[in-house]
Amino acid sequence: MSAIDLAPEWLTTEWFNTPSPLSLEALRGRVVMLTAFQMLCPGCVSDGLPQAQRVTATFKSSDLAVIGLHSVFEHHEAMGPNALRAFLHEYKIRFPVGVDRPDGTGLPHTMRTYGFQGTPTTLLFDRAGQLRRHVFGHIPDLQLGAELMALIGEQPLAQTELTSDVNGVCAPEGCR
Amino acid sequence: MSAIDLAPEWLTTEWFNTPSPLSLEALRGRVVMLTAFQMLCPGCVSDGLPQAQRVTATFKSSDLAVIGLHSVFEHHEAMGPNALRAFLHEYKIRFPVGVDRPDGTGLPHTMRTYGFQGTPTTLLFDRAGQLRRHVFGHIPDLQLGAELMALIGEQPLAQTELTSDVNGVCAPEGCR
Amino acid sequence: MSAIDLAPEWLTTEWFNTPSPLSLEALRGRVVMLTAFQMLCPGCVSDGLPQAQRVTATFKSSDLAVIGLHSVFEHHEAMGPNALRAFLHEYKIRFPVGVDRPDGTGLPHTMRTYGFQGTPTTLLFDRAGQLRRHVFGHIPDLQLGAELMALIGEQPLAQTELTSDVNGVCAPEGCR
Amino acid sequence: MSAIDLAPEWLTTEWFNTPSPLSLEALRGRVVMLTAFQMLCPGCVSDGLPQAQRVTATFKSSDLAVIGLHSVFEHHEAMGPNALRAFLHEYKIRFPVGVDRPDGTGLPHTMRTYGFQGTPTTLLFDRAGQLRRHVFGHIPDLQLGAELMALIGEQPLAQTELTSDVNGVCAPEGCR
Repeated sequence: MSAIDLAPEWLTTEWFNTPSPLSLEALRGRVVMLTAFQMLCPGCVSDGLPQAQRVTATFKSSDLAVIGLHSVFEHHEAMGPNALRAFLHEYKIRFPVGVDRPDGTGLPHTMRTYGFQGTPTTLLFDRAGQLRRHVFGHIPDLQLGAELMALIGEQPLAQTELTSDVNGVCAPEGCR
Repeated sequence: MSAIDLAPEWLTTEWFNTPSPLSLEALRGRVVMLTAFQMLCPGCVSDGLPQAQRVTATFKSSDLAVIGLHSVFEHHEAMGPNALRAFLHEYKIRFPVGVDRPDGTGLPHTMRTYGFQGTPTTLLFDRAGQLRRHVFGHIPDLQLGAELMALIGEQPLAQTELTSDVNGVCAPEGCR
Repeated sequence: MSAIDLAPEWLTTEWFNTPSPLSLEALRGRVVMLTAFQMLCPGCVSDGLPQAQRVTATFKSSDLAVIGLHSVFEHHEAMGPNALRAFLHEYKIRFPVGVDRPDGTGLPHTMRTYGFQGTPTTLLFDRAGQLRRHVFGHIPDLQLGAELMALIGEQPLAQTELTSDVNGVCAPEGCR
Repeated sequence: MSAIDLAPEWLTTEWFNTPSPLSLEALRGRVVMLTAFQMLCPGCVSDGLPQAQRVTATFKSSDLAVIGLHSVFEHHEAMGPNALRAFLHEYKIRFPVGVDRPDGTGLPHTMRTYGFQGTPTTLLFDRAGQLRRHVFGHIPDLQLGAELMALIGEQPLAQTELTSDVNGVCAPEGCR
C-alpha cells in the first residue's frame, strides 16, 4: 500500500533494560517514542532523558513504548557499553535502551539513516510504524503530551485492516 | 439524550479580555479548559496561570477555549475588579477571564456549585459541554497535554448526533 | 565625621510585620538590605521577595536587617494597604515592610529620592548607614551572599571610632 | 603555632585544565574551594559542578581558587581519564580538575583521608590552608557566597605571621 511509508528499522549492537532486542516491527500496534541521546550530552541529561522518563510514567505501556537509542558520534572511547551501563544505573533509566550500530563512519547507522542533526533527537512513530515526528532538541511537555495522545487515539493498524481490508490484497510480507 | 449530563453554567459578574460575556453553552463544540484562580494565590501565580498561558499558546483556539475564572473566597477587599484588571495587565494574561459571582456566602457561586476545594482548580469540559475532569492543584504538563488532546480528538457533538440520532427527539432548543 | 555620607532616610506611611516604624538610623550598627517591590510586579514576586526571604533565613538578625519597601508607582488603586496586608499574608512574608510615602507625584518619596529605576530594587546599607549598593533587577544569590558578608565583616561604626579617635570626646553613652 | 592545624594534601594521578599539578600548599594565601565529584553522579552534574562554575565566575581568582577533584569510588571502568576529559569538554568545565589517587582500596586516597560521605562534597580551606568547612551534598548559593566571603575577608597567613611571629620557632618543615 503506497500510502504507508514504513520507517526504516533501527540497527543496534546491544540492548539494556530489556530481556531481548527490540525492533520497530515488533512494536507495531503501539505508538513508539524514540529518544536518541549520548550519555555525555548535557542537553540529553538535563532535558531529553528526564522527559522520556516522565513519558514512561504518564502513558500506559500498552499504548506507548518509550525507547532510548544511544547514538554516539563523538568521544566514542568514553561512551562504550560499560560506561553506558553505569550511566543508566546512576540515572535510574529503566526504559529499554539500544546502542546505535557503529557504521565505520563517524556516525552510527540509525543516526545516519534518519539524518539526526545531533542529540537529543525525538522520533515519534504511529501504531502502523510510520515516522510521524522528528525533532532535534527540546519539545515542551504540553505539546509532546498532545502529540503522543493524538497518535495513541488513531486506529491501530490491525483494526484499520479489519475494517478496510475486506477485499484487500495480500502479499508475502502481509496483507494491505 | 439522557447519557449527556450537561455541566452547570458558570455565573459571573464581569469579564476581561473578551468583548462580551462567555458561557459554557456558547462554547459548545470546542473543548473548554477553565482555570479557577485568585490573583493573590501563590500557587495560581506560579503554576496554574502560567500553565493556562502555555495551553493557550499550544492549542488552536478552534479546538480549545481557555477560560480564567476569578473565584475569590478570601481577602475580597483586595481582589476586586480594579485590582484584577491591574493584575491581568502586569502578568500579561490575554485569555478571557470572568469574575465568579459572589453569592452572599463567603464562596462565590461557581466555586460552590462545582465544589472547588480551593485555587487553582482546573476543569476540563468536552465538546458536548460535559465536565470530564476536575483537579485541585497541579497537573503535570505532559498529562494535561494528553488529556486535552484526547478530548479534542472526540467527535464533536454535532457529528455524534448525525451518527447516533437517526431516531432522536427534537425539542425547540435542538435535537437530542 | 565628614567621610561618612549618610544615606537619606526612607519615608513611609505604614508598616507591617513590626510593632513600630523602623528607620535607617535606628538600625545603625547592623547591615540593612532593603528590597523595594510592588505586590503586582511579577519579577518581585518570582525573584526579589523570595530572595529577601532566603536572606532572612540565612543571616543572623543581629548582623543584618531585611526590610521590604512597598514603592507603588502604578495601579495605585490596586495596591493599597489592605491589598498589601492580604498579599503579605498569602505569600508568608514575615520581615518588616514599610509603605513608601506617596508624594503627590506619581512616584513615592523614597523611590524618587533614591532614583529607583523600577521594582524590584535592592539597596544595601553598611553598619554605618551608608548606601553601598543599588541594584535594579536581579542579583545572583552567590554574589548577594558574598556582598552581604563583606558588609557584615566590616568594623561596626562604634569600634572604628574607638580605634581612630584617640582624642575623641566621651559622653555618658560612650566615647565618640 | 599549634593553633594552626594544616589540612592534609590531596593526592592525585593526573590534572586537567592546568599546565601543572596543583597542591594545597602552593595555593596557600588564597581561599580554596574543592568540589569532589564523579562524572556519573547525577547530583554532581545537576548541582555541585554548576555551582562551582558560578563560584569561579563570581570571585576573583586572586582571592579564591576553585578546584575539582574526581573522586571515583564506583564504576571505575566507566570514569577513567579519557572519559573524564570528554566529560569536562562537553560540560564546559574550565577550572582545574585533579584525579583523586586510587589507593588499592575501593575509595581513592583523598576521599578516604578526608572521610567524604559521597559526592558531591565541598571543602573550604582558608588562606592559611586549614580546612574550615566540609559539606556532603547541597549548600545554597546564598550561604556559600557568605562563607566564601568570610574566609576571603580573613587576614592572609603571611600578614598574620608578620604580626605575631616576631619571635617564632622554626622547624625543618617551616616556621611557625
